[in-house]
Amino acid sequence: MYCADQKGIIAAVTNFIHQKEGNITYIDQYVDRPNGAFFMRVECDFIGDSFNLNKFKKNFNDEIGNSFSLHCDFYLKGQKPRMAVFVSKYDHCLYDILAKQQSGELAAEIPFILSNHSDLEIIAKRFEIPFYHIPVSKENKADAENMQLVLLQENKVDFIVLARYMQIVSSKLINQFNQKIINIHHSFLPAFPGAKPYHSAFNRGVKIIGATSHYVTEELDAGPIIEQDISRVSHLNSIADFIEKGRDLERIVLLRALKLHVNRKVMVYGNKTVVFS
Amino acid sequence: MYCADQKGIIAAVTNFIHQKEGNITYIDQYVDRPNGAFFMRVECDFIGDSFNLNKFKKNFNDEIGNSFSLHCDFYLKGQKPRMAVFVSKYDHCLYDILAKQQSGELAAEIPFILSNHSDLEIIAKRFEIPFYHIPVSKENKADAENMQLVLLQENKVDFIVLARYMQIVSSKLINQFNQKIINIHHSFLPAFPGAKPYHSAFNRGVKIIGATSHYVTEELDAGPIIEQDISRVSHLNSIADFIEKGRDLERIVLLRALKLHVNRKVMVYGNKTVVFS
Amino acid sequence: MYCADQKGIIAAVTNFIHQKEGNITYIDQYVDRPNGAFFMRVECDFIGDSFNLNKFKKNFNDEIGNSFSLHCDFYLKGQKPRMAVFVSKYDHCLYDILAKQQSGELAAEIPFILSNHSDLEIIAKRFEIPFYHIPVSKENKADAENMQLVLLQENKVDFIVLARYMQIVSSKLINQFNQKIINIHHSFLPAFPGAKPYHSAFNRGVKIIGATSHYVTEELDAGPIIEQDISRVSHLNSIADFIEKGRDLERIVLLRALKLHVNRKVMVYGNKTVVFS
Amino acid sequence: MYCADQKGIIAAVTNFIHQKEGNITYIDQYVDRPNGAFFMRVECDFIGDSFNLNKFKKNFNDEIGNSFSLHCDFYLKGQKPRMAVFVSKYDHCLYDILAKQQSGELAAEIPFILSNHSDLEIIAKRFEIPFYHIPVSKENKADAENMQLVLLQENKVDFIVLARYMQIVSSKLINQFNQKIINIHHSFLPAFPGAKPYHSAFNRGVKIIGATSHYVTEELDAGPIIEQDISRVSHLNSIADFIEKGRDLERIVLLRALKLHVNRKVMVYGNKTVVFS
Repeated sequence: MYCADQKGIIAAVTNFIHQKEGNITYIDQYVDRPNGAFFMRVECDFIGDSFNLNKFKKNFNDEIGNSFSLHCDFYLKGQKPRMAVFVSKYDHCLYDILAKQQSGELAAEIPFILSNHSDLEIIAKRFEIPFYHIPVSKENKADAENMQLVLLQENKVDFIVLARYMQIVSSKLINQFNQKIINIHHSFLPAFPGAKPYHSAFNRGVKIIGATSHYVTEELDAGPIIEQDISRVSHLNSIADFIEKGRDLERIVLLRALKLHVNRKVMVYGNKTVVFS
Repeated sequence: MYCADQKGIIAAVTNFIHQKEGNITYIDQYVDRPNGAFFMRVECDFIGDSFNLNKFKKNFNDEIGNSFSLHCDFYLKGQKPRMAVFVSKYDHCLYDILAKQQSGELAAEIPFILSNHSDLEIIAKRFEIPFYHIPVSKENKADAENMQLVLLQENKVDFIVLARYMQIVSSKLINQFNQKIINIHHSFLPAFPGAKPYHSAFNRGVKIIGATSHYVTEELDAGPIIEQDISRVSHLNSIADFIEKGRDLERIVLLRALKLHVNRKVMVYGNKTVVFS
Repeated sequence: MYCADQKGIIAAVTNFIHQKEGNITYIDQYVDRPNGAFFMRVECDFIGDSFNLNKFKKNFNDEIGNSFSLHCDFYLKGQKPRMAVFVSKYDHCLYDILAKQQSGELAAEIPFILSNHSDLEIIAKRFEIPFYHIPVSKENKADAENMQLVLLQENKVDFIVLARYMQIVSSKLINQFNQKIINIHHSFLPAFPGAKPYHSAFNRGVKIIGATSHYVTEELDAGPIIEQDISRVSHLNSIADFIEKGRDLERIVLLRALKLHVNRKVMVYGNKTVVFS
Repeated sequence: MYCADQKGIIAAVTNFIHQKEGNITYIDQYVDRPNGAFFMRVECDFIGDSFNLNKFKKNFNDEIGNSFSLHCDFYLKGQKPRMAVFVSKYDHCLYDILAKQQSGELAAEIPFILSNHSDLEIIAKRFEIPFYHIPVSKENKADAENMQLVLLQENKVDFIVLARYMQIVSSKLINQFNQKIINIHHSFLPAFPGAKPYHSAFNRGVKIIGATSHYVTEELDAGPIIEQDISRVSHLNSIADFIEKGRDLERIVLLRALKLHVNRKVMVYGNKTVVFS
């Protein structure tokens, strides 16, 4: 939840939960003082079977939310979000996502994998997940995207991960999934946006390469950053070495970002993220 | 030393040293295959008092260097380069340089410290190193630089370190000290070149900040990178936190770069560096 | 503050501060669920000149603290703790502490530096801080420590930093400064406790070395850890290289720990620390 | 190759290769001065179809190797070693190994996967690799190991990876695969050897956890270290968090070690490794 910073918010919220006989198991808040913005994340348990999320939500907004102008999202702990995975030809991020989802570490459902190439269909088959091959060309771009949107709606997808999907997604898709598309970019943004960042990094002679996971916005590679990490390189490393080292970075960084998102630990505000621990 | 990659270079050089009764204590080479460039760094001991660097150099070039078109620099191990330190108001890099130089860890002589402000004169006094205060303004920029050049020449300075010196140095100085001016930039270049990089990093919402030490070239913050490192930040950190975390990065990264340079472990080629271990 | 985890603590504390017209500028809490322990750190501003810490403290304990069995420390923001610095012959940590204290980054007062050797007296002089040379031998160990205790009391020292002080401090001193002596150990504890950790690390063939800052307890190098960090090494590095790389680790890690302690961000509980952000 | 350090080795080897019309594409050497040991790794190309490894090896040893007492291993670049994968119930390292082997990044053949449990058979099936389930109990330990040895011999296995295999392998197996069994241990060795290292790390209150890949020797978790890496933790992390963060460390560190081994970049000497770049 977030709102303008005001006196008494924490007390009001924690009092309300206690009145409803909830037990707070996690609470963290952050105040952006220069902008006077208040952010809070609360987890609580309610004993007994009678808990009703919609009722709780209504009560909360009536008694607290509206008076503080709180913007608040409510989730049930066990409710896994539905994640569509978009890929092209690289398999390293896809393997990680599927392995972690299957082991239960990534608490999301994967209704389907979608690709503009057919190369990774074999992996989808191995993990018994529906695979849709929708080629994208200049000519069919609008049609392809409409097919994507139908699939996303039919499958009640909550958010999309671009796991090295090598196509620029359109404004239409971005608007329908605002702050719901997570990309992994293979550079330490804002350095080297756009295509071929490892080549640019190599040519610049950097001593460290990076990867960045962010929400997709209309401006390319400029959306709110969720997670970044880096790896050291040296003059001994070729572009091929950069790419290989980068693969491990990409999959680790993307997975961390996905876990944060799936566990509702990321709040977007302005072009930044608040990432709760 | 470096030259075009050719068969037999290593054998020729090592044979030559053996003939002169030298004992190789370090040898490392690197071949940039796409560009066909060969780089080598050798350290050797010569027993006895009779070793004469100039004679050795002449013999080497006559017998080996010229036939392979080798570009080679020769240094005596004990010979410390003379380093001028340029500062403005920030003291963290200066303290590190002076402490490490005094403890012997940084094998350089420091003939003087130069600043466009007088704030850090007290530190120079503490370490008993001459301090020159040369204010720089739009009007006196050329004069100030001429005074700097006189000081540099009179003190037989080998190279300059810009230890958070907040003035852009002119082409004239850069040309006279080509690949001999080391700067510390307080960002992970090529992200955030120019002024106020921590502010830009904060506004972009990055999760990692960096520092970069590089040789100064005419294009601002675009010279060959010697060393970089990073530190994690989060939404909890203010710009002041970025700056404070960054200070530790800056001094560590600059010191590593200075040690590499002073120990003749860096070779510049194109706009990159080969950094020997 | 800390206490057994109970419903309503946060609400009670924040309500109390609001009633007293305080403005909470920082609040963070942590619950150790397996042990049912609750920790909280609050910063607040009180407008007006009338604020009285002792009165506030009494009111707080009467109204809140006692009923929740809260253990609570109160500090005024501007009040700098008094830190005695113990050193032997290594100067790298000392230089960092003095430089950072002088620049204001480390908000502590340094009434004196104490050493069992006289080597670093010159540095104390440079920074105009009193220096006491108290040699320690098997024979005079008890006397030396008594002299130390007198100095510590006369100077109203709040806590002690062992900045590579190469003597084991006695139980007597540890008891008088319980959780108030901060040491830097030059290994990644619990690996390589005791003497010569870099030698042990070298002989074990590790690929990473570390440094650990911790509170001193009676068991050697086994007290609550405040901060650790690491640096990569390789077969190319000699013991001398380990030591040199380690120096940078030691000073950075110790300084981070000191800042956390000085800013009252560390709570010890059991043999662990809770480190607030 | 390695031998006692002597003058002229590099020249002799490089001259020999030039005479045989080989083109050196990689050469790196390391001298352990205190022990007078010399290590070198060379890659070279031979033009034409007539190259014969056995003949080259014989010539090399006759002309160079014997006179310098060089110990030298020879490999053809394209020859992939055969790797047996031992697992128990954890799947994260196995998934990484299979994904990287299939993508070609890990240049090894995998004749089979062996486990003391049947849980991961489904993954073996997905990747179409033979899976052998050999339960191990106190009673059948010797029999089980004999069955393992038969499988290893029949499948001409070059080396074994223990990808979180939770059984201690016997001296017999270790002797037959001396320096050919690679383990991943889930701590920063030598801290926390043996069972449940994350629990021990948690109880010690460390701020950093690690993982270590090493060759297996008779002393548990004490063999030559190939690679290590670490991850930061805090008081906020539970044991479950340690384990989850650790999984990513384990798979990344093990994979790096496997790549180094498979690419013949690791030389064991004493209880340490020389890891060429």
